[in-house]
Parts: sequence; C-alpha cells; structure tokens
Amino acid sequence: MEVQIAVAKVNKYATSESGDTLEVVERPNGGLSVVLADGQTSGRGAKAVSQMVVRKVIGLLAEGVRDGAAARAASDALFTDKKGKVICTLNIASIDLHSGTIVLARNNPAPMFICRAETLDRLDSESIPLGASRDVRPLITEIAIEPGVTIVIYTDGLTHAGSRRGTPMNVGEIIHSVIEEENPSPQLLADTLLAQAMRLDENRPVDDISVLVLKVSTRTGDNVRRMSVRLPIEGHIKS
Amino acid sequence: MEVQIAVAKVNKYATSESGDTLEVVERPNGGLSVVLADGQTSGRGAKAVSQMVVRKVIGLLAEGVRDGAAARAASDALFTDKKGKVICTLNIASIDLHSGTIVLARNNPAPMFICRAETLDRLDSESIPLGASRDVRPLITEIAIEPGVTIVIYTDGLTHAGSRRGTPMNVGEIIHSVIEEENPSPQLLADTLLAQAMRLDENRPVDDISVLVLKVSTRTGDNVRRMSVRLPIEGHIKS
Repeated sequence: MEVQIAVAKVNKYATSESGDTLEVVERPNGGLSVVLADGQTSGRGAKAVSQMVVRKVIGLLAEGVRDGAAARAASDALFTDKKGKVICTLNIASIDLHSGTIVLARNNPAPMFICRAETLDRLDSESIPLGASRDVRPLITEIAIEPGVTIVIYTDGLTHAGSRRGTPMNVGEIIHSVIEEENPSPQLLADTLLAQAMRLDENRPVDDISVLVLKVSTRTGDNVRRMSVRLPIEGHIKS
Repeated sequence: MEVQIAVAKVNKYATSESGDTLEVVERPNGGLSVVLADGQTSGRGAKAVSQMVVRKVIGLLAEGVRDGAAARAASDALFTDKKGKVICTLNIASIDLHSGTIVLARNNPAPMFICRAETLDRLDSESIPLGASRDVRPLITEIAIEPGVTIVIYTDGLTHAGSRRGTPMNVGEIIHSVIEEENPSPQLLADTLLAQAMRLDENRPVDDISVLVLKVSTRTGDNVRRMSVRLPIEGHIKS
C-alpha cells in the first residue's frame, strides 16, 4: 500500500501571512501526522496562535504522546495563555503504522469527509475549537489503513467561500464529482476544491484557505518516500 | 518567483526505519527551512539520534533562532547527551524571506552542489558532524533567492552507493546530465540521483539515502502553496 497526502493552501486576499499553519511530523513508532491549525482572525496575530498550537502538538506527537492528549494539552496551553479570549481550530490526521489505523482528531466546527468505494461520509458532529474553555476534547475517528480510502479536511475559509455573495460552496458535491473520475490524485482533489473556492470569492479569498487530502491506495511504484513543496514568492521580498 | 523543494528517501535494505530524518518548518519571519539529519549507524538507535537533532533544530528555528546558532545548540546537546560517542550529520536549507536569501548550513562531510546557469559548484570544504566535540560550527553559505538556482543536498548513503562493488557514484556527473535537459523538475533530479544509487547497490541500499533538491524559478502558476507526500507502506503493518 501507499499513502499519498496533498495540501493546497492560500492566504486571505491582500495579506502576506496566512493564519493557517500546517506541518508534518514523523511519528516515533512509525508513520506520520499532519497537523493543521487555524487561528482566530487573520494576519500576524492569527499566525502566531496557529503556529504555537502546531508547535505544541507536533512536539508532543514526536515524544509519542497520543493524538487526543496532544490536542487537549494544546487547548489547555492556549486557554491558560489567552484566558479563553482566543480560539484556534485543530485537525490532526495520523497514519499510525503501530496500530495500522488512520487517526483523525478534530477540534473544528468545519466538517470533514471520508470516502470509501461508493460512499461519501460527511462527519459534522459538533466540535469545539481549542482554547474556548477548560477541558476541550477533540472528536476522534479511527479507521483502518486500507486501499480506497480518501479523507478530506479543510479550514473554514473553504466553507465560507462565496457565502457573502450568496453563492456558498457545496464541498460534498465537488468531492463527489471529482472522485467519480477514474482514480483522481489527492492533489487534483485538493486543487479542484481550492480553485472552486477562489472562483466563488472572485480570486480574492475572504479568508485563509487550506485543504488537506489523504488517500490510501495499492502500491503502484517503488518503496521510495517522496515529498514535494511549492512555495510561491511575491515579487517583493521583505527586507 | 517560486521555490520548489523535492525529496526522495529510502531505507537501508532490510531495515524498517531510516536513520535519516527530514522535516520542514515554517520560519516565523517568512519562508521555510528544510532540516535533514543522518544519525550514526542505522536502524532504531540512529533514528532516535537524528530525530532528536531535527526536533531540537526545528524547535529553535520556529522560535526565530538563526540557523547557525540552532545547529550549534543541537551539537552541544548531542555532545552533552552522548559524551562525544555518537555523531550526527546535519544540513539546513532555509528560504529566508526576511533576508531574501537561501541560507545553507552544513555539518556533513558529504558535499553539496549549487547550480546556476552554466556553472555547477561543488561545495566540499571540510565539515564536521554534530556531537563530535565541543563547539562544532556549521559551514554557512548564503546566496540570493533568484530564478535559475538549483541546490542539491544529500546524506552519505548516496556517495557510498556502489563503492563496495568498486563502482562508486559520481554525483556531479549525474546532476550535470540531468540539468542539461530542458528545465528538469527538482523531483526528477532527486529521483534520478536516488535511482542511480539504488542501481549501483543492486536495489539493496547499503545505507539510508536521502536526496533533497531546491529550485528557484520564475513563477509559472498561481499563488497557491502546495505540498505532496508519498509514504509507501510495507505489506505487513506492525501490530
């Protein structure tokens, strides 16, 4: 088998920093975790919050702390620091080779989607962001690592796209139309979702948007791990 | 402009864990850093060492510590912990949007390559791994972020490939032949180097191998940040 992970990420229009932070960390017992946080508001302040949360979670996961405990610790740290005045959403998607499962932790009102064969499940149980109160817990979903599973996670910039103009985004419908094609790559799915959101916002996103897609498939190639990153740079470099 | 980063990474034959650790972190003042460490020996022990070094460096970079200082701190921590008995190579490649430069820190006897237009420079000044003694410093190379620059960094598994069979790898020659083609992607360059090493080792790599390629080019597309990861999983999942 192989797991492919794809991310597409864009800043709110006319802001140089995204309030969304996404990082990947290797798990000490095998596998890896993707951690995505969205700090309240946008720009520098939001970036500092989401970076702090991701740092905290990644540091704990690297020490072997379980995903749910890492999310709770990050929430307590944020609540203590900001006294409940600043919140931050968090999603952790872990490929846990020790348990043979994908562990999905969610502290985010935005739903996520799990596709298997012909079914597309929308997971939208109520979920509270970190830092809102004491003892915030994530919703945990655990599924087997098996070919044919696709998971779609995103920050609320995606769901808000177009809503000010009265043309809200239907995320489930777009996922459905893409996965109907033959074996789409996770990057194609992430790019299609982001492109549609940008279209609805007339290429001026009203919020930071991050889309994360994980896909498990039968092994098609070699046993090489690969990673690629594309970082667009504005013409002017800050000096 | 845009920066593309590509990684290809494989374990030593018949080991389930690589002693090489590679992670990417966002820099608090803009841009990102790629951190690559190779712990002495292979398997679990080496993995623990390289993970500790990468964790330490990434934690410091995320706090805004400069690359050279982060490398020195990681070396001191390793020396203190292991009393000079365990060493670990380290490369940091940073896209620093604050200074507008690419900062390359190297504590690794393996050289690195910088290609610009028609020239291919091999940087092979003597460089000592972390943890070997007190006060180990990295070699720092700083170059402008400008289109046409390609940087190739790797762990010593690449240089050792084939050497036991008397057919050593000529890294510079392969880079030269790939970049002669029209505008090769960094993933193609990383994959070609790794594939040649695997061929020389008859598909049973005698050491962990990691290849990292950074390329700066003129912007060809949108302003979306993208990342993709491919994680092959062995048929058996540890339980």
